[in-house]
Amino acid sequence: MNLRESYFKDRRVLITGGLGFIGSNLARRLLGLGAQVTLVDSLIPEYGGNLFNIEDIRQRAEVNISDVRDPYAMRQHVRGKDLLFNLAGQTSHLDSMREPEADLEINCKAQLSILETCRHENPAIRIVFAGTRQVYGKPDYLPVDEAHPVRPVDVNGINKAAGEMYHLLYCSTHGIPCCVLRLTNTYGPRMRVKDARQTFLGVWLRRIIEQQPIQVFGDGSQRRDFNYVDDVVEAMLLAASSDKAVGRIYNLGGAEVVSLNQLASLMIEVNGGGKQELLPFAEELKRIDIGDYYGDFRKIEAELGWRPTVSLREGLRRSLDYYRQHQKPYWG
Amino acid sequence: MNLRESYFKDRRVLITGGLGFIGSNLARRLLGLGAQVTLVDSLIPEYGGNLFNIEDIRQRAEVNISDVRDPYAMRQHVRGKDLLFNLAGQTSHLDSMREPEADLEINCKAQLSILETCRHENPAIRIVFAGTRQVYGKPDYLPVDEAHPVRPVDVNGINKAAGEMYHLLYCSTHGIPCCVLRLTNTYGPRMRVKDARQTFLGVWLRRIIEQQPIQVFGDGSQRRDFNYVDDVVEAMLLAASSDKAVGRIYNLGGAEVVSLNQLASLMIEVNGGGKQELLPFAEELKRIDIGDYYGDFRKIEAELGWRPTVSLREGLRRSLDYYRQHQKPYWG
Repeated sequence: MNLRESYFKDRRVLITGGLGFIGSNLARRLLGLGAQVTLVDSLIPEYGGNLFNIEDIRQRAEVNISDVRDPYAMRQHVRGKDLLFNLAGQTSHLDSMREPEADLEINCKAQLSILETCRHENPAIRIVFAGTRQVYGKPDYLPVDEAHPVRPVDVNGINKAAGEMYHLLYCSTHGIPCCVLRLTNTYGPRMRVKDARQTFLGVWLRRIIEQQPIQVFGDGSQRRDFNYVDDVVEAMLLAASSDKAVGRIYNLGGAEVVSLNQLASLMIEVNGGGKQELLPFAEELKRIDIGDYYGDFRKIEAELGWRPTVSLREGLRRSLDYYRQHQKPYWG
Repeated sequence: MNLRESYFKDRRVLITGGLGFIGSNLARRLLGLGAQVTLVDSLIPEYGGNLFNIEDIRQRAEVNISDVRDPYAMRQHVRGKDLLFNLAGQTSHLDSMREPEADLEINCKAQLSILETCRHENPAIRIVFAGTRQVYGKPDYLPVDEAHPVRPVDVNGINKAAGEMYHLLYCSTHGIPCCVLRLTNTYGPRMRVKDARQTFLGVWLRRIIEQQPIQVFGDGSQRRDFNYVDDVVEAMLLAASSDKAVGRIYNLGGAEVVSLNQLASLMIEVNGGGKQELLPFAEELKRIDIGDYYGDFRKIEAELGWRPTVSLREGLRRSLDYYRQHQKPYWG
């Protein structure tokens, strides 16, 4: 890693989705680097925001409960900021199919609104946008690099694709310096575990701690990659502080590729016990399943020097430790 | 062409944007084939709808002035229909940059709403969606085929890309039989000529008839392809009546590729007189300019047997004849 940590000292930073999983971990790291951090979050119950996520840093960050779809509030937040980590979003694939218009509102319309606000109020603001591997849909080849066609298989993927295109457009035509990271499955402390809205892995963590069997849908042979949240936070800091990241799209990705069965076994091993069971795919899940996926992250490695440093085993250990200590705020 | 004309006899057909340029020409052709045609149009002044476009067929078609963003009205319209030609949209690139949220409402949100309505009310309806070459942005290579990356350079292109992805998704996951045509510059009778919102060519037609110089922006060397509207209508009928078109994206494209200077000269020749002048690109146009563009239409030719049949010379002649006869309803 070649992160210029001093870059963040005294920077005024806005994080949308700041009470969420990645946003709150990022906020903690930024505060450690001496940044002035403002967190915006709507705390919509189905999303990832959770006040407990920032309990230990609440006195040091400015917290504003508001919706990024509110252009008047956003105008205030954007003014005078140096950096915007734009993480607010709806992440559930299934929810996006059931309520496509709500997904469009947050992942598409709100993004355009945020960018319009930046354009009018603060066009020099550096933006890092949290995109998703979901834009690729069912891979043509593996590992998936950034040149892979964008061909989403659910409404969430389409709206997230539009969201990242808006960012790159406002970069190229209005000069707002933006970078898009396409995240793969991210896990770790402060993720939502009460349901599968932030990947199935959250539910697995909860169930194994509850001494219930881990439920694997399908035959468990689907392969995936995973990033521990601290590695994603480092990628975001690199993207925000590197001039060559402007106007670029980068995949993140895991160094280890595992099948769901292997992941379940590893989790049981790290946990020191537990069970897994195979369940048939629900029809609505099967329709939007993408089969195997893992990402090629050589571009961000070559250009920004990022690569994941936390092994799956270590990341699972830390995650299990965290949720064993803090069940109540996350079990819901 | 291998159009099964009998396919359309007594079919119940809905056309959104039905009072617009392509919609009204399509309606006339469908009525000639014995279809029962319902036209929906919002008649928003900046869009292409014009009651004069259907003056000669008004008694034979059902006309409903309403907005496709109105889910209650759309529910009524979609019920009992066999075919939907989904042509309603905002087409101006510049307007999309000035008012991005309005473009999102019509090209993105309304499309999702229409598809949700079809899913709930009439999932067997066959849909042809009017996409655009604008989704490709600045070409990596020429002619541009359907495998070219989707990388729009304006808000309109992004929202139209989302619109077509929604259609293909509702086809693959909800079984609604959809086909996407990516149109290039389309011209002919009943297009908007009062301004450049439906390509610059409309304005050129108006100006040459007004005996004003044709204004070419830039150095006039940019190459483009064009389709006469009757050819586009045939492509839509083929797409609606061919089973193999379901779930597919097809480029349309012109058989002749010309520079803007060549096009202006040809128009002056066909008109029997006129002038052209070069003007510098306005800054906001330059930013979203795509340079040369022409489309590869071999896929639709191979699969559906479509190719353009009206030469540019003949198409321009028919267009000039039309607007010489009907200035008042179009000059605005």
